Amino acid sequence: MTRTIAIIGSGLIGRAWTVVFARAGCTVRLWDAATDVRAGVIAQLVETCRVSGDDPAALARVTVCDTLEAALEGAEWVQENGPERLDIKRDLYARMDAIAAPATILATSSSALIASSFAGELAGRARILVAHPVNPPHVVPVVELCPSPDTDPQVMDRAEALMREVAQVPVRMTREIDGFVLNRLQAVVLAEALSLIEQGIVTPEGLDDTICHGLGRRWTLMGPMATINLNAPGGVADYLERYGPTMARLADSAARGEAFTPEVARLVAATMPDPAQVPALSQDRDRRLAALARHLSDKPGLTDP
Amino acid sequence: MTRTIAIIGSGLIGRAWTVVFARAGCTVRLWDAATDVRAGVIAQLVETCRVSGDDPAALARVTVCDTLEAALEGAEWVQENGPERLDIKRDLYARMDAIAAPATILATSSSALIASSFAGELAGRARILVAHPVNPPHVVPVVELCPSPDTDPQVMDRAEALMREVAQVPVRMTREIDGFVLNRLQAVVLAEALSLIEQGIVTPEGLDDTICHGLGRRWTLMGPMATINLNAPGGVADYLERYGPTMARLADSAARGEAFTPEVARLVAATMPDPAQVPALSQDRDRRLAALARHLSDKPGLTDP
Repeated sequence: MTRTIAIIGSGLIGRAWTVVFARAGCTVRLWDAATDVRAGVIAQLVETCRVSGDDPAALARVTVCDTLEAALEGAEWVQENGPERLDIKRDLYARMDAIAAPATILATSSSALIASSFAGELAGRARILVAHPVNPPHVVPVVELCPSPDTDPQVMDRAEALMREVAQVPVRMTREIDGFVLNRLQAVVLAEALSLIEQGIVTPEGLDDTICHGLGRRWTLMGPMATINLNAPGGVADYLERYGPTMARLADSAARGEAFTPEVARLVAATMPDPAQVPALSQDRDRRLAALARHLSDKPGLTDP
Repeated sequence: MTRTIAIIGSGLIGRAWTVVFARAGCTVRLWDAATDVRAGVIAQLVETCRVSGDDPAALARVTVCDTLEAALEGAEWVQENGPERLDIKRDLYARMDAIAAPATILATSSSALIASSFAGELAGRARILVAHPVNPPHVVPVVELCPSPDTDPQVMDRAEALMREVAQVPVRMTREIDGFVLNRLQAVVLAEALSLIEQGIVTPEGLDDTICHGLGRRWTLMGPMATINLNAPGGVADYLERYGPTMARLADSAARGEAFTPEVARLVAATMPDPAQVPALSQDRDRRLAALARHLSDKPGLTDP
């Protein structure tokens, strides 16, 4: 049976999700609150496919709907990509919970809001979760699945299975946590990076080189735990015995929230291309991420050490 | 003129550096304190090249020397890869500083020791620095160049130029700092990662997936600063204004040194392959890192956003 997926909100993330589900063979029903956005979305999806090298023929499975009700009709999964505002999410989830069939799962792409903050009072709160992608999900496979205290574990099981079926990589959290996993890790890196730049130890370019020609290379092939497992003859336990005290000392001396200052923001911004180039650079990034994904998956086993 | 490089210590790092310099056309003079290690090193270098896909013909430029004096003869750069022990480094640098011609630069691969800790008292302290690679440097290009307070800025200029000439990516620090840049960033990631695992929020596998199928993908193509520059319409300044407060809150609630416990080490180790597999897995990692480096450099401009 063909799966039917509803995409709510057709910005960059919503369009990327549309490609993920459509190329996996799902029927996709897309809705955006803005009429003019809906009118242009198919042309934008063709452009998304052109950049990533995905076959636009998959877009034949996409229907643009005129109402939220029409989009949710027959959907087993709703991927919502609305604005990151609590009032909007509360209204939207109340509406969707009233409309959607009982077995429909409602998932938000939100990076900033936990599910309990907008779903805690709803009758259907057991079927609501966060499915947070990395932008954009059609070229970066990870999806963080974060339940609220009310989310049914069977809903989490279904979410995990669906994500694998559409070739994403689900990461399941056991309970709700601010920032989920990915942004918690990104936050500590940004804090220490900004501090090193602000102190003048390294330039923003040097900081970026350290990751993209160094740690990032290893972390693309295996995560931080698998990485340290190969950095001592006796594996991860040996590594943590040898280097744990040094790493603990470095972590203790690292910067935290105070590193996010307007001064360092200006310092870093001064080294970056004009913000007018952000859309073109983002397209280039997506093209390169798609090529990297093909490189990694073209060689079976490469991404699973 | 062909450059002459001395490699001191022929463990994994020393052998990888040998390949870096030899394939770039340098004459390499290699010495190891252990006679039996010296005897087997060419065969090991052939194996290193086999795994990474480097042409072993470059090894014709490598001479294995019987003494430290012979290795340093005529060398403009010494890359030292001895044990990470302060007493050994102090003895070795005193010897090398006495032997080496005045213009020779002495660089250590040390990740744990800052240059002032073993070079501060030597007559030639102005020509001594840290050139810290990511293991192994022949397949991961970044090299951290960290001066002591005594290192001559012209020595740093020469170090940077040489590293670019042999196709590595130098990252220059302006002053000495514990952990340099790379391990400071790795330390904060490990601390928060171990804490999330210990709290049971995510499994070690899930943690690794979050990076290697998520953040790591982006960080291979561009560093953390270039990444956030594309995560808001107005670039990095816009990003830090929108999301800085959230990231600061996450960084403030992140774990630090206390996360490195024996309990979590056991927990992670239990999910990893048997430590006996570390050598085979490391070879596989190096093969994949080499393939990744070829993928990235085969497309000019890809690694320089």
